[in-house]
Amino acid sequence: MTVKISQTPELQAFFKEVSGANSDQGSPRAKQLLLRLVNEVARIVEDLEVTDDEFWAAVDYLNRLGARNEAGLLVAGLGIEHFLDLLQDARDADAGYVGGTPRTIEGPLYVAGAPLSQGEARLDDGSEEGGATALFLEGVVRDTDGNPVPGAIVDLWHANTRGTYSYFDSSQSEYNLRRRIVTDAEGRYRARSIVPSGYGCNPAGPTQECLDLLGRHGQRPAHIHYFISAAGYRHLTTQINLSGDKYLWDDFAFATRDGLVGQVVFVDDQAAARARGVDGRHAALEFDFQLQPAASQAGEQRSQRPRVLQES
Amino acid sequence: MTVKISQTPELQAFFKEVSGANSDQGSPRAKQLLLRLVNEVARIVEDLEVTDDEFWAAVDYLNRLGARNEAGLLVAGLGIEHFLDLLQDARDADAGYVGGTPRTIEGPLYVAGAPLSQGEARLDDGSEEGGATALFLEGVVRDTDGNPVPGAIVDLWHANTRGTYSYFDSSQSEYNLRRRIVTDAEGRYRARSIVPSGYGCNPAGPTQECLDLLGRHGQRPAHIHYFISAAGYRHLTTQINLSGDKYLWDDFAFATRDGLVGQVVFVDDQAAARARGVDGRHAALEFDFQLQPAASQAGEQRSQRPRVLQES
Repeated sequence: MTVKISQTPELQAFFKEVSGANSDQGSPRAKQLLLRLVNEVARIVEDLEVTDDEFWAAVDYLNRLGARNEAGLLVAGLGIEHFLDLLQDARDADAGYVGGTPRTIEGPLYVAGAPLSQGEARLDDGSEEGGATALFLEGVVRDTDGNPVPGAIVDLWHANTRGTYSYFDSSQSEYNLRRRIVTDAEGRYRARSIVPSGYGCNPAGPTQECLDLLGRHGQRPAHIHYFISAAGYRHLTTQINLSGDKYLWDDFAFATRDGLVGQVVFVDDQAAARARGVDGRHAALEFDFQLQPAASQAGEQRSQRPRVLQES
Repeated sequence: MTVKISQTPELQAFFKEVSGANSDQGSPRAKQLLLRLVNEVARIVEDLEVTDDEFWAAVDYLNRLGARNEAGLLVAGLGIEHFLDLLQDARDADAGYVGGTPRTIEGPLYVAGAPLSQGEARLDDGSEEGGATALFLEGVVRDTDGNPVPGAIVDLWHANTRGTYSYFDSSQSEYNLRRRIVTDAEGRYRARSIVPSGYGCNPAGPTQECLDLLGRHGQRPAHIHYFISAAGYRHLTTQINLSGDKYLWDDFAFATRDGLVGQVVFVDDQAAARARGVDGRHAALEFDFQLQPAASQAGEQRSQRPRVLQES
């Protein structure tokens, strides 16, 4: 017989005490959230007859997860970050927000404060020249009526050819493959960079450890992250996922969405290469975005998610 | 209107995919646990309308919690470790286990492999002499019929006068205030140590940060941890909580239980002091334990909770 006690009056009173109900200090919201959380943990332990060994392995896992700073990666891998996008989509539909480029997950690897430039920027520091394929990226930011949005900030970041990100990969230069570009009078941004490789979870890290238990891989298709913001428009967090990648529709973080696949065109024409200032084979990717109008100034801002701000 | 999507067939299928249902690799038990966990996280987000800012603050908190190795401390502070004791008590009652010294929480500060001695041991390294009060601790380990249990291993650990534990407080000597004592032919253990102070959460740590949000303190009464094990008996994890402490019944970790309060007797008699080899005021504490018979060998063992094994 499964023994259960968590819903008895005694335990319910205990969980309220635990969650600070008997204190006039603290945050009512935190008390509400923690009361629910403690109740659910207790229910899971009872319902699934979680053993002591399982419970303490999970506690140990949480310590190792945080020690490696991988909680954000795990949340992506468990599809919870994608769920938050789907829930926001449903809330938007409920509130009458329609149109625009789909949102998708931010992921845990953004760094605030990348160099800002007007209209165009080069994202790579040149250190992978020879090994990397140059990528010429451009597009227009528009409103949902198709009108260009000049002065929008296109804040983009992506991995190098080894699938790693500057700052988190300390072998890369500061803000390598991270730039903020202000769209020009026609709403256009232009970037020269390199074709990124897909990202893979650290095979020795706790996120991959969890994925292994679930029989899942920890790979993402090659992709480019975007924050796009402009006065009067809703902040957009999204990604372009690159066509042709074997993980395009098998992303461990579930970020690929219809409308977010970028067609990479490889160009072998020498004249085109010369015109772009490179030698030989390179790649081009054009991707436009549409922003929804913001109903309030708060909507123009990205979430207050704690993020890295690199110290120069 | 609260928008909810988590219970739709689409989302339920997604959570199954997330939890590895489509893979023939991995652990069926892990898939079962993660499926439930992801579902509950989604339900909490929906039901309590958790904002992005709240959600990402929680993810950031998990990283900081693990980086400080405080997941075990938080689990104690949120009463979940005490809940596990109460649930095990209820399971024991259901299975017909009765009698014996009550169990209570282990806490996160055990270190395996403390020096082993026969019948008696000195726990403190003498470094607090002058500032600390010597404590003479003894008792008998019995079965539930009152018969002594010789050869039981009494593995005890406690804090120093600053409320900190060796290994975790690197200023203390190796295994200070940690010993394993084998009970003698009369089932008796004797220890000389010092009167511990209560434990308090690191005021700058993530556990106290959570307790602050709940309007709660992070203090424990002075106490002495025990593991007691003997062939043929159920392993016992418990604590003596010291009488007279202001936090005795206001323990942030909810470990104090009826039957686990130790009466500390302070002795000012010089002859008694001389007989015990100390000078002046000291303390005595007598505490007996009763072990339940084990129905199987597995019951003789403590949980496989990951624990520190100090490298000498």
